[in-house]
Amino acid sequence: MRDTDQQTPKDKGQRTTGNGQKITALAGGVGAAKFLLGLTRVMPPENLTIIANTGDDVEHFGLRISPDIDTVTYTLAGVINEATGWGLADDSFECLQWLARYDEATWFNLGDKDFATHIYRTNALKQGKTLSDVTRHISASLGVRSTILPMSDAYTPTRVQTDEGELHFQEYFVRRRCEPQVLEIRFDNIATAKPAHGVLAAIGDADAVVICPSNPFISISPILAVPGIRKALQQTAAQVIAITPIIAGQALKGPAADMLRDLGHEVSARGVAAMYQDFVNLFVLDEADAALQSSIAAFGMQVAVMNTLMKTLADKEQLARRVLALMA
Amino acid sequence: MRDTDQQTPKDKGQRTTGNGQKITALAGGVGAAKFLLGLTRVMPPENLTIIANTGDDVEHFGLRISPDIDTVTYTLAGVINEATGWGLADDSFECLQWLARYDEATWFNLGDKDFATHIYRTNALKQGKTLSDVTRHISASLGVRSTILPMSDAYTPTRVQTDEGELHFQEYFVRRRCEPQVLEIRFDNIATAKPAHGVLAAIGDADAVVICPSNPFISISPILAVPGIRKALQQTAAQVIAITPIIAGQALKGPAADMLRDLGHEVSARGVAAMYQDFVNLFVLDEADAALQSSIAAFGMQVAVMNTLMKTLADKEQLARRVLALMA
Repeated sequence: MRDTDQQTPKDKGQRTTGNGQKITALAGGVGAAKFLLGLTRVMPPENLTIIANTGDDVEHFGLRISPDIDTVTYTLAGVINEATGWGLADDSFECLQWLARYDEATWFNLGDKDFATHIYRTNALKQGKTLSDVTRHISASLGVRSTILPMSDAYTPTRVQTDEGELHFQEYFVRRRCEPQVLEIRFDNIATAKPAHGVLAAIGDADAVVICPSNPFISISPILAVPGIRKALQQTAAQVIAITPIIAGQALKGPAADMLRDLGHEVSARGVAAMYQDFVNLFVLDEADAALQSSIAAFGMQVAVMNTLMKTLADKEQLARRVLALMA
Repeated sequence: MRDTDQQTPKDKGQRTTGNGQKITALAGGVGAAKFLLGLTRVMPPENLTIIANTGDDVEHFGLRISPDIDTVTYTLAGVINEATGWGLADDSFECLQWLARYDEATWFNLGDKDFATHIYRTNALKQGKTLSDVTRHISASLGVRSTILPMSDAYTPTRVQTDEGELHFQEYFVRRRCEPQVLEIRFDNIATAKPAHGVLAAIGDADAVVICPSNPFISISPILAVPGIRKALQQTAAQVIAITPIIAGQALKGPAADMLRDLGHEVSARGVAAMYQDFVNLFVLDEADAALQSSIAAFGMQVAVMNTLMKTLADKEQLARRVLALMA
């Protein structure tokens, strides 16, 4: 939540921040999953609710794929392919290779085990279940103890307008490897999408909300674009903490830096903070960007500076502990 | 074709039966595929058109599976799992095992490569292609030179009324291992199903039509039940030859013998011949059943006696050569 006076930093997070506190996180894929893995190891995972981006969901081979939900789920379940950050560990690619015999486009890499998730999801949706139902069943089946909610049960795929024409986000991201210049980003059906059941309550009832270190344009913006969610973040009594996805002008993964530039934003953590200034109270800045502290504080946020690079499990836990400490 | 006078055996097959002759085969799964493999090795495979049963098609995991088409296609492509007679050689089962984590019923065994076929088919059908289109594309992609036609583009799944209630054929066959007693068999939507494009012409224009050694109830009857097909068989100028699927009262594979008994037919090759007497000219009987020759001839068919057991590739080729010789 932010004060109406955006120029005045305000200390929020007055609530008890012991083990009993409820934390809600807005999450994209790989970067978010790393932080959330750390978080679930230093707090009771049952007290964590994750609102996952579904803007990068895609239909491929006729199957509904929810890459960010799956990355978060697989990571928290301990079955993620750690080398890539997505997909399942020790997976094989027999199905995909056989699909290539039928001239199917195989740029979207799916393993045999991973296909099971998409087949299950597609069939359950066809039978009338919601994406929330499906996500709950998959995460429970894999032993995840935190709650993972899709931002919406609606299908709101991200379309990227580029100098090569409009592409589905996954075409831009995976097939074209972020090479086209981004002119505009939009989310199909977003105006009529509703937050999934539990999303607004998770924001309103939390002791703290964390915006994970995810791409602001294609991971966090789709969540914010679901009618009602941004307003809930502005209005919640919870402290809202954002962790920078940009360190020294570079995105740790993916096209966030390119998108900031292409879309006319400053390519820095401050550029991201500016996008969140109406609802974030506290911005976690990387040590490498300590010089930006006062200019981000000018947006009306507290600013904490720490190492945000998560190379090892210990890094993830340390960042999680330090973010938790900010809530105390 | 049969004469109107069913009591008079009639010698058909007057046409040239050299390499140029066109043969059309009605086929179920494993037994048919064995014979057809032999046939394609002793005649130009391009001259063979196969009308495949789709009565045992099933939707499983939300995917459309066409077991008999796939068995015939994989066999002719040389990629069948020879140990089982169905599925692909050297396949793995990672996807199916992962589906089990989501509590999906995994009694219908599908390999990772095989899943690719069903994913491709389901997606193509969803995009408006017909089962004929899909079947042509898959068989061409795998290098099959014969033409494989589904009996119909309609979905006409076989329902088996049993003493345990109504089951989809695959539930009866795979999950319940043919244990329930069969009371009745019906095919959904069959009254409005149309023969797939090319099916009636393939029967009408052929030099010879072969009814493969397949279960008469659940492999051949569904084909005959598509409006127009049985009549085309009765009216074609082609010789119509059936190869017995029953040897010494036993089905070589599957529940044909049990079904003959349960449904009140004689459990013998003669029981099968009786079901085909309105359109078959020549019945190929196994040596073990030579004693039935005259009583089958009484149905108004010629009868040829030979070894019909196909254990080896040489057996398949020999049976195919002998059946071809009958057309000469």
